[in-house]
This record gives sequence, C-alpha cells and structure tokens, in this order.
Amino acid sequence: MAPHATANDLSTEDVSSSTDPAAPTVLTGTPVVSGVAFAPVMWPGERPALPGPGTPPADAEAECARFVAAAAAVADRLRARASAGTGVASEVLSATAALAQDRGWISSAEKLIRAGSPAPNAAVDATEQFVAMFTKLGGLMAERVTDLLDVRDRVLAELAGDPEPGLAQPDHEVILFADDLAPADTSGLDPALVLGLATRLGGPTSHTAIIARQLGIPCVVAVGALTSVAAGTPVMLDGEAGTVTVGPDAETARTAVARSRDAAELVSRWSGPGRTADGLDVSILANVQDGASARSATDFPVQGIGLFRTELAFLDRAKEPDAAEQTALYREVIEAFVPSAGQPDAKIVIRTLDAGSDKPLLFADNGTEANPALGVRGLRVAFGNPGLLDRQLDAIAAAAEATGSSPWVMAPMVATATEARDFAAKVRARGLVAGVMIEIPSAALLAPSILAEVDFVSIGTNDLTQYTMAADRMSAELAYLTDPWQPAVLALINMVASAGSATGKSVGVCGEAAADPLLACVLVGMGVTSLSSAPAAAAGVGAALGQVTTAQCRAAAQAALATADPADARAAAAAPLHA
Amino acid sequence: MAPHATANDLSTEDVSSSTDPAAPTVLTGTPVVSGVAFAPVMWPGERPALPGPGTPPADAEAECARFVAAAAAVADRLRARASAGTGVASEVLSATAALAQDRGWISSAEKLIRAGSPAPNAAVDATEQFVAMFTKLGGLMAERVTDLLDVRDRVLAELAGDPEPGLAQPDHEVILFADDLAPADTSGLDPALVLGLATRLGGPTSHTAIIARQLGIPCVVAVGALTSVAAGTPVMLDGEAGTVTVGPDAETARTAVARSRDAAELVSRWSGPGRTADGLDVSILANVQDGASARSATDFPVQGIGLFRTELAFLDRAKEPDAAEQTALYREVIEAFVPSAGQPDAKIVIRTLDAGSDKPLLFADNGTEANPALGVRGLRVAFGNPGLLDRQLDAIAAAAEATGSSPWVMAPMVATATEARDFAAKVRARGLVAGVMIEIPSAALLAPSILAEVDFVSIGTNDLTQYTMAADRMSAELAYLTDPWQPAVLALINMVASAGSATGKSVGVCGEAAADPLLACVLVGMGVTSLSSAPAAAAGVGAALGQVTTAQCRAAAQAALATADPADARAAAAAPLHA
Repeated sequence: MAPHATANDLSTEDVSSSTDPAAPTVLTGTPVVSGVAFAPVMWPGERPALPGPGTPPADAEAECARFVAAAAAVADRLRARASAGTGVASEVLSATAALAQDRGWISSAEKLIRAGSPAPNAAVDATEQFVAMFTKLGGLMAERVTDLLDVRDRVLAELAGDPEPGLAQPDHEVILFADDLAPADTSGLDPALVLGLATRLGGPTSHTAIIARQLGIPCVVAVGALTSVAAGTPVMLDGEAGTVTVGPDAETARTAVARSRDAAELVSRWSGPGRTADGLDVSILANVQDGASARSATDFPVQGIGLFRTELAFLDRAKEPDAAEQTALYREVIEAFVPSAGQPDAKIVIRTLDAGSDKPLLFADNGTEANPALGVRGLRVAFGNPGLLDRQLDAIAAAAEATGSSPWVMAPMVATATEARDFAAKVRARGLVAGVMIEIPSAALLAPSILAEVDFVSIGTNDLTQYTMAADRMSAELAYLTDPWQPAVLALINMVASAGSATGKSVGVCGEAAADPLLACVLVGMGVTSLSSAPAAAAGVGAALGQVTTAQCRAAAQAALATADPADARAAAAAPLHA
Repeated sequence: MAPHATANDLSTEDVSSSTDPAAPTVLTGTPVVSGVAFAPVMWPGERPALPGPGTPPADAEAECARFVAAAAAVADRLRARASAGTGVASEVLSATAALAQDRGWISSAEKLIRAGSPAPNAAVDATEQFVAMFTKLGGLMAERVTDLLDVRDRVLAELAGDPEPGLAQPDHEVILFADDLAPADTSGLDPALVLGLATRLGGPTSHTAIIARQLGIPCVVAVGALTSVAAGTPVMLDGEAGTVTVGPDAETARTAVARSRDAAELVSRWSGPGRTADGLDVSILANVQDGASARSATDFPVQGIGLFRTELAFLDRAKEPDAAEQTALYREVIEAFVPSAGQPDAKIVIRTLDAGSDKPLLFADNGTEANPALGVRGLRVAFGNPGLLDRQLDAIAAAAEATGSSPWVMAPMVATATEARDFAAKVRARGLVAGVMIEIPSAALLAPSILAEVDFVSIGTNDLTQYTMAADRMSAELAYLTDPWQPAVLALINMVASAGSATGKSVGVCGEAAADPLLACVLVGMGVTSLSSAPAAAAGVGAALGQVTTAQCRAAAQAALATADPADARAAAAAPLHA
C-alpha cells in the first residue's frame, strides 16, 4: 500500500496523511475494478446548457414530429453503437436507446408540446418528471437517472443541430473523474488512454461500474471528495484498495503500477488448483445456476461447484417439477464436473431451494410480506411444505447414485441449531453429506453449535452483510454499509472460520467476498477452506493466494480485524500481503 | 421451575423429561400472560357441522333477505356484548361485529344466492373466499381467520334457528385448551373458573393473547402438541415459562400456584425504586410517545423516561414542525417528570426521529423500498437531510435549558462507530449527553468501539432480534424466531452489557424484553443498568428484581447463555432465581 506506507514512514502514529503537509492526500471510495493507474486527471466538459423559455410552436403537430424524429435519431445512433460493441457495454447502450424511445417519456413530451412548449423545453420538462419518479422509486431505478439525463442532452443537441454531446477522447493517458458517467460515455472509452475511472456518485451496480468491469479499467466509485481535485493533477488510483492518491510520489506510484501489471500477468497465467505459496490447499469453486452455466464454468480454472442454486428450475413454474425432471436437473449439473463415475473427485455443493418472498413459487405462494428479505424464504418455506424439501433431497440422492458422485447438500436461511439438526437428519437419511449456509447473524454467532450438527458450512457473505448491517443489499444509498469489509461482518466471518478450524470441518465462502482477491487472502487467514464465486473471478483469487503464505494471510486477517472501518481494513490487510 | 426441577432430581444429565417415564410431560409454547394455574383441561365443543348440498332457493331475493337479516342479528348481539364489556375485549367484539356486516362478504354471499345457493351454503362459500384471501395476505390478516369462521358459525346457527354457538361456561375450575379462540369466545370467559388458557395456534398478537392479557388469565399460545392432551387431564400451566405440564405432581403444582399468587401480590404492592434484594440500583423507566403518555406514566412506579419516541409529532405532517413547536413537544415530555427546576433527578432519555421507510415523512420522502426495515430509516434519514437532525437537537437543547434538566439524547439505527462518533459530536456541541440505540447486530458486535464514542447505549431488543434472526418482528409465522430468548440474541445483549460494565457506562434495554420479569433479571445479571417498557410492566419487573440478589441474576444470565433454545433458556434462567 504505497500511500499508506509513505504516510507511515513519516509518522508511525497516524496512518491518515492529512495531519502531515508533506504526505499526499488519499481519497477513499468503493473499489470496483482492481488495478493501479497513475496519470493526470481529466474532467469531462459540462452538460450542454438547457434551453431558455421559448415561444409556443406555431404548429404543435409539426413540433411533435420534430421531437419524435430527434428521439428516433438518438436511439438509432445508440443502437448502432450497441451493435458495434459486445457484451455488457452493448446491452447497456441498447437499454439507453430504449429509454430514448420510451412511450411514456415521448408522450409526456408530446403532451407538453401540444400545451404550448417548444420541443427542447418539452424534452427538459418531461425528463424532469421521469427523474423525479425514478428518484422516488429509489434503488436501482435511481441509478438510471444519469442515463435519462444523457438521453435528454443528446435529444437537445439533435434538435439544435449541434454535434452529439459526449466525452472528448483524450489525446494522452488520463484518469477520468466524473460525478457519474452515462453508459454512452463509458462504453466509448479507450482503455489505452483512459487508465482509470473515479466517480463521486454511483454504487457497485451503477453502469459506470458495470462497464468499467467489462473494459477492465481500474475503477473506484463513491469517492466523496473528488471535486476538490483539479483537472491535470497527477493522481494514483488503486482499484483494489478503493483509493485515489492526489499528487503521489512519482517513483512510488510507478512502482505500484508495475506491481499491479505483474499481478495482472500472473492472473492471466494462473490455472489452479488453489494453493497458498506455502502449500495450503484452498478449493477455488464456481457458483452456477443450471447445467449450461456448470458446463461453461469448466472453461475456468475452478475445482468444482461451490454453490448450485436450485431455484432457477422452480421459479415461474405453474407446478413443481416432477421427480424425473428434478433428478435430471441435478444430474446435468453434477455431470458437468464428473463426466464419468471414474472421476468422482470434483467437489459439488448443492443448495436446496432458496425461494419464497421476493422469489415466490407460483405453486406454493406465501402471500405478500412487508419485508420479504426478513420473511418466509429459504429453508423456512419447507416448514409449511416439508414434502417440497423431501422431493428435492430424493432427486439429489437419485442424481448422486446415477453419477456415482457424493454431492454435498446445504440449506439456505438457517437461523438456529435445531433447524440445522433437522435438515441434516433428512440429508443423512439419504446417504448424502449435510451442511448449511451461514447467512443470518444468528447462525454465525451460533457457529460452534451449528457445526456440531452438520458436516460443513458455507458463508453467504451478501446476505450475512445485509442482515448484520440491517441494510438492503440492493440499496445504492446504503452501499457504504453493505460492504463485507465492515468490521462487524469480518468479526462474524472470523467466528465461523474459527469454529470450523476448531472442529476440522470445511468452511466455505460463496458470496461476493470470495471474488475479491484481497479479501480472499483474509478469509483464508481466518481459516476458510474454500472460495466459490462467479467463475471469471477464480483466476484473480487463485493467483493472489499463490503469491502469499498462510502466515501472511493470518497476519492480514488479524490486521483487518483490528480496524474500525472498511477502508482501514483493506489498507491494513494489504500491508502484510504486499510485504 | 417445578417441572424441570423434578426432572433434574431424577437425572442431572437431561433437563428434558421425555426420557423418564415417571416424570410428567412438559409441552412448551410462547408465554403470553404470566401466572401459574393448576386444573383439569376443558376442550370447547366442535364447530357446528357445515350444511350439505341444498336445493336452489325458490325466491333468491327472499333468501338474500334471510341471509342479510341473520348477519344483522349476529352483529347486533356481538355489539350488545361489546357495549356491556370494556377496554380491549369490547373493541375486539366490535371488530367481529363489523366483520359480520362486511359489505364485501355480504355481497359475495348474495351473489352466490342469486346464482342458486341456499343461504347457509352461500355463507360457507363466501367465507371460504375471504379466508383464502386473508391467508394469502398473511401476517396480521391471517390471524383474523378464526374471527371470520366464528362469524360464519354464528350466522349458520341463526339461519338454522339453533342457539348461538360458543363456549359452554364451565361449572368448575378448568384450564381451557383450544386450537385458537374467537374473540366472542374469549371475551366471555370468567377468570374465576377459567384459570388458564392454552392454544395450539396463535401468536403474541392474536386475539386470544390480547384478551387473555386484559382479563389477566395466565396464557400460553403456539403449544404444538396440545391436541395430545385429553379433556379432564389435570395440567399445570405456567404463563411465564411458557409451559404446560401434563399430569404434574399435585403437591408441586399447588406450591407453584401459591408461589405465583404471592408473586402477583408482591407486584400489586411494589412502588419502586428499582433495586435488587442486595441493593443494586436498576432504573425502571417508561417508554412514551408524547406529553400525554408521559404524564400518565407518572401514575406507575417508574423513575423517569427510558425512551421518548420523537416521531409521533412528525408523522402525517405536510411540513416539518417549526422550532417553537419542536421545543414545546420536548418540554412537555420533560416537564411530566421534572415539574420544576428543583427536581432535576428523573432520568429522561430522548430518541431522535426514527422515521423513514415504513414510517415515511411526508416532507422528506425517500421513495418506496423493497425491504423498508432494511432501508433508509432512523439516523440514516439524517444523512441526506442533516438539518432535520440539527433542528431536533436545537429544540432538545432549548427544552433542556427551559426546564433546567439534562436529558440524554440517543440516535436510532446506528450501525458503525463512525456514525456514533458523528452523532455524539452534534449532541455534545449542544451540551447534552450523547448515546445511541443498539438495535443492529453490527452495533452490538462493535459495542466496545461504539461505547468509546458515546456516554451511554440503549438496546432495542425488538429490532435487534428481528435483524439477528433475519425474521420480521411483525410476522406471526416467524414468531418462534423473533424471541429475545433466542440464544444468539442473548449472546449479543451480553456482549453489549459486558462492554458497558467494562467502561462503567450505562446500558439500558428499551424493547419488549424489558417488560418480561424473568428476562429482566437475566439482563441485570448481564450488566444492564436500566429497563424501560410500557409503564404497566414496571411493577412486575421491579417486584421480580426486588426478590433476587445480583448473584442470582448473574447465575440466571450464565445459565440462560449456556442453552441452545428459548424454552431451555427460560427454564435455565428460572432455576437460580426461584431457588
């Protein structure tokens, strides 16, 4: 951690640099894409000026037609760029094109034009109505406000005959700063010139974050103090630590960039299996949702499936799939990693149905709930409908027998040791290995008694964080709380991992946390024995573990657990690992 | 704990009596009204038989009129009984009368009659539609199903010219068992003959529970195995422990009943202040919501206000109350307990606005949220609107100055030490004493670092339980999880109380847990220094504490913390206290 190391060189008492005028200022935000970049800041231009009050159009219908044509032209151009692109960036551009053609938005504007507004004013006012509505809806919809304002500006430019607004392409290497970026801006970025991205707003689900991930541009969002940094200032952005160092020592920054490039090189070469530098085995596994995703996971360096989510096959179904279909489903997933009975070594962890509430079953509806995340979901659905769980376990047992494999089976949303015991009895009665998810604070606190009832546990860090912080994991406003680096969450994970080490039973992690290379080292240092995430994250995590010893991981875990804040925890964990 | 003591006499290894054929069977449920009763079981009669298929009425309009008249007669009789009664029982009967006159229900029945159903069949089928709807709605509506079935049976009897169905009044002392009881049944109960109530269904918010509380009849709900006990079997019901002992030793049972009566006698005489038998002071305080409730709290033996909920004055207001009105509000509450500047000793704890989400502010709406309990509520509302908090604190400071008092001020929904520090700075800048609520698992886990930032904390056990168990506190289906006796919840409370003891700072409890005399002793044993609840609970809690020593409380806390289940925790805690 170069910036912190610099500060520490000057003052061992204070890791914050603000008290020392010689140390560079370090701004912190939410890390989104790892990698270190060092370049001068570029700020995008201002949004185009909004139209002043105009005179009512002489021919309202002609003005409507002019508006509709401008919106269509904008949508066409965005769609053309979408089809030239690929993947997520392309999907996001298509979604923005659809916004420009939104029936509600266009008819609001037409109504305003017929009431006497010129087309540009109508575009502004109609957009304002939708922005207010999106903001009121909150969450993911509120994150679309930037996209809508971008569509408005493009339509205004089209109506005025001006060139389409957007980012000027830089003519030298830069780190792009912005309040937030529209997808049409971000998708055109050239990673050869835009070395890093930092925004003042936005959460990990904003379009800026999504597209930065696809382009592989190091990115930090929600950096509060960003606007204090002038264009042209040299900064170092660290997308793993979530920091922006203003005016760093150039030599230190170049070293950090080089180290980050070496690390990326290591990742691209990593092929498994998961193992620390001193030889501790850590299973690197994939989260999958059906046979197809299980098969495509075999293209990545993973050693099996750490989380098969049963529910996809059950949702939107008028009735429960029959025994043959359920068995075929489990068999297809197992066979992706166990192609013949002669290769039964791959680990396969199956989670029973996590439906109910926000993922209702059409054939076993529990009614609406005020707080679905705190409702009858996961294993709780089975309390009112035990046959549903029994039939799943029968199907898993049949699939295991047919493939000659020994899948592990775990239940979601377990809160008490009694629930764990009852579930394990059903699983073991079918000759299967029984475990539970630890994703409720209660279960983490009771880890020793729960581990006494089951063969293994797997920590679901996304839900565990949501409940521990009492903050909805989908809320953009509360993203600063739903961070697995929050000290209370780390403390709970450590309780579970310690309880696992004490019993010698497996403790997996299958949330977002398992995809974060730095956090993965901390988890292993706590005693976690397997890490399961989107297969694309496997190499980054595996390569990071391969560079460090168990002792370094333990030191990182101890250092992180001693902090009071996610940014401090990241910095503290990095120090012993990069030493 | 007589039943467990008996079991323990025979086997120190196993507190469950089921392995010993000589020990009585102990059924457990959710305790609702404390007190011990010993009498034979009475089961109510079956519901009247439903009508068989009938022939279409010759004159549909006449049949409709017959149905409407029967429903009106039933409603009239229920209303007459409502006006003869008082309080909650009366309100509940009025609500049932209103169900019998529900426009939707009556017109459904009329539609069925016009389609060819006889009136009784139409009553059954219309009720079935509404039962399905109520069940689908879940939660509190589902608990009204029993009431609707009761209305149906009364209308059926009226149509058949039969006597109104209902409980036969017993001619000797009984303990009434039932699946669930309709309000019309429960409100007519004679506490001189019905000594106890146990139901197989129902939660703490069911009508059975509400009316049992008003009549003061010892009551346990959600006793799963109830139907295994035949009418006439002598049972002992313990409404504090939540147990039903089948065929207890008669001498043991009579002793327990006598002890329970003595305890009730003590409660009626208790006048404060809160103090254990060996002289440890524990403040017994009241939860209030405005000046009127603060004044009426002074009729009870409380030593001040442990929780003034600011929000009532803010909800349903088109704009924020101005400075003068806010100051007057706080002043009115303070003055209820500090009538002149010469009596500044009463403790007053004010909680800043806990609005947002399910309690939205009209003037600062945050939009709808998928899970309001996990959303922007409590202190989080102030992040986007800091002036709102500043103005409350200014008003509290002005009220403190005007009354010459020193109220304590705390924030709701604090998750991190940073939030606690920022809040405390604002409070102390106004010369007030600063604290925070501990109601998020994160805050409990971080109690040492949070206590380092503030002067006191208060544990909100209702929300803390909800988040720790990931179970909505309003869900009847998940009531077995939202129990403050759950081991994980006790563990978190103990962490906070221990952190408080280590620093010498006050740790209050202001949830439902503070109203439970047995749990109150456990909390004091953990190190809790004040208990705040509905004023009516003060005497029960104060009298219980006055009977035990600090050492007994500590032993009760240790015993409860060593269990794995709420029922075991209650039994384990009771043993050292009743020794």
